Amino acid sequence: MEYDTPLFFHVMQYAAAADRDVIDMVSGNPDWEPPGALRDGLREYADADANAFQYPPSDGLQELREEIASRRNVDVGRVIVTNGAGEANYLAMARALERGAGSELLLTDPVYPYYPGKAGMLDADVTLVPTKRDGHLDVAAFREAASEATAAIVVNSPNNPTGAVYDAETMRALAAVAEANDALLVSDEVYDHFDFSGEFTSALSLSSPNCVVTNAYSKSMAITGFRVGYAVFPPALVEAAKTRHMLVNVTGSRPAQTAVLRALRETDPSYYEASRELLRERIDAFTDALDDAGAEYTTPEGAFYVLAKFEGFPGTLSNVERLVDEAGVAGMPGDTFGTAHEDWIRFALVTPRATEAAERLADYF
Amino acid sequence: MEYDTPLFFHVMQYAAAADRDVIDMVSGNPDWEPPGALRDGLREYADADANAFQYPPSDGLQELREEIASRRNVDVGRVIVTNGAGEANYLAMARALERGAGSELLLTDPVYPYYPGKAGMLDADVTLVPTKRDGHLDVAAFREAASEATAAIVVNSPNNPTGAVYDAETMRALAAVAEANDALLVSDEVYDHFDFSGEFTSALSLSSPNCVVTNAYSKSMAITGFRVGYAVFPPALVEAAKTRHMLVNVTGSRPAQTAVLRALRETDPSYYEASRELLRERIDAFTDALDDAGAEYTTPEGAFYVLAKFEGFPGTLSNVERLVDEAGVAGMPGDTFGTAHEDWIRFALVTPRATEAAERLADYF
Repeated sequence: MEYDTPLFFHVMQYAAAADRDVIDMVSGNPDWEPPGALRDGLREYADADANAFQYPPSDGLQELREEIASRRNVDVGRVIVTNGAGEANYLAMARALERGAGSELLLTDPVYPYYPGKAGMLDADVTLVPTKRDGHLDVAAFREAASEATAAIVVNSPNNPTGAVYDAETMRALAAVAEANDALLVSDEVYDHFDFSGEFTSALSLSSPNCVVTNAYSKSMAITGFRVGYAVFPPALVEAAKTRHMLVNVTGSRPAQTAVLRALRETDPSYYEASRELLRERIDAFTDALDDAGAEYTTPEGAFYVLAKFEGFPGTLSNVERLVDEAGVAGMPGDTFGTAHEDWIRFALVTPRATEAAERLADYF
Repeated sequence: MEYDTPLFFHVMQYAAAADRDVIDMVSGNPDWEPPGALRDGLREYADADANAFQYPPSDGLQELREEIASRRNVDVGRVIVTNGAGEANYLAMARALERGAGSELLLTDPVYPYYPGKAGMLDADVTLVPTKRDGHLDVAAFREAASEATAAIVVNSPNNPTGAVYDAETMRALAAVAEANDALLVSDEVYDHFDFSGEFTSALSLSSPNCVVTNAYSKSMAITGFRVGYAVFPPALVEAAKTRHMLVNVTGSRPAQTAVLRALRETDPSYYEASRELLRERIDAFTDALDDAGAEYTTPEGAFYVLAKFEGFPGTLSNVERLVDEAGVAGMPGDTFGTAHEDWIRFALVTPRATEAAERLADYF
């Protein structure tokens, strides 16, 4: 299995080089406007005193950490502002492996490919635990797979690529499995603002001493390029994670942190509701068209991806390239995400042309 | 030896809590204005299309990489834009250790404390090679210390904390030692714009296949909080370094990269010359006052730090705290930087009150 990005780039480059109009459903970049207050924050920062251009604290601007802590109802000392959820997940996995309580990471299958990528870089053993066909977790399978060798269970809800949202019972059960095996539960909640099911449960609500929660403003504020995320560690593990953050990155980028702080404070809930509503409409239109195309598909309970399976048309790279050339729609081959959905293709609904893409697929199949 | 930052914070907090006016000569934050074009770049970015808020390429904005490659006269494929020089050094050391050609890092003594910090995180063996009393390198000592166990020699010129600038002969000899031992020469050149000696020689000028050069705009543009740096790797090593960068950070922060690109293009050389001139004046005034205080000191050939030794007043943490309380000047204890200058105190000249601080020291001693 390859990392996400190189294959991403391959497919995007293939689509860009195609001799026809292609609708890009590959990348996970939101296509809507960031909050207005974020732009205001950048404008204000551009005129700030030169002191404001110097190192923020290594663990992030104090006011931003306090804002995050207050919203997540945790002690501010547990919060590290990171270079996006990517660094937060890296710090969480590294901490889990350095605790001396196991060298194995339990991941789901299908899986977000950065997780096994990071695991490989950190010399961890990886065990993929198959999900149910609808993307929900089989907690018994995690219970069976976990052992004293397990350093962490890493999950993502709402999930990329399945769209599954794990309910409170599932999260509680996962935390219990982690606790019973002296492992961490790393809960990547970067799509938390895109829950259409009402079932989303943050691992922070569990009050488990074994949970690390990671998140970012990349998706919720439509700013994947800003690299402002955070990790909330258990008190006993946070200092060592801060040290690694400092030794790798020193600190995060201050213009981005400053703009996010202002956007957090001033953005009305209706901003987030509007992007959810936009996605709900796209999901309906896209899955209606997949019905017309006779495809099997996952209906996302959260996040903004649809996995689809076309009869007699497995989601290999060569078929994905055929779809670019012959239907004008670019998706991601299923085997990017592990072994469970090799025959499927993932479509990201973060394009205003999602409905048009669905119609092209319906016409093609 | 502790990492830089915790002790930094300790001394800065001690100084801030003091019951008197204290001149901060601890932190390495430039105190002058960033380039005007940098502020313009931020303003322009604040109004950019929403697409410009999404992921830049993992290795950095293409135009920024091209600008760097053209200025450094290297192939653009060798350039990775990093989260400051901190991440660039981390990537370089990790690559050196993962090549399978040794597990030891040769560092200088005195040393910039992040280097042994990173080495420890990466499970490397560290050997400190003493410099000459004036901070220049004893190349023979490196030649003797290097072996097949050596993964990299890590140097910083102009140097923090000694102010030494390594000349072309030294750099060539270091590269030869690295090549002879199948090791890398990691050359951290973040102070390259602050060379007062005319002797500064970038490792890139050596055309050695064993050199990795790291740098950042933190000091030269007075933007330590932006986190825009870069590493130039040998062609054979760059792809693996890009993978680690992607798996740790995904990519760097785009508002900062965009602003730096504009500042690179539009900033006149006189901007950099003005900060050099400012520092030259401060160095003269500060060292004159150290003469009056009867201190031994290093006269920086580059960068903006002075190491000073006061007779009968070793640079311990408790003496540094006494200096805060009794003289109103905060410096860094010498043992932060290894064993070679334990009796010394480092003063950063990035405060408009450097001359006043020197007068306080002269009065005190």
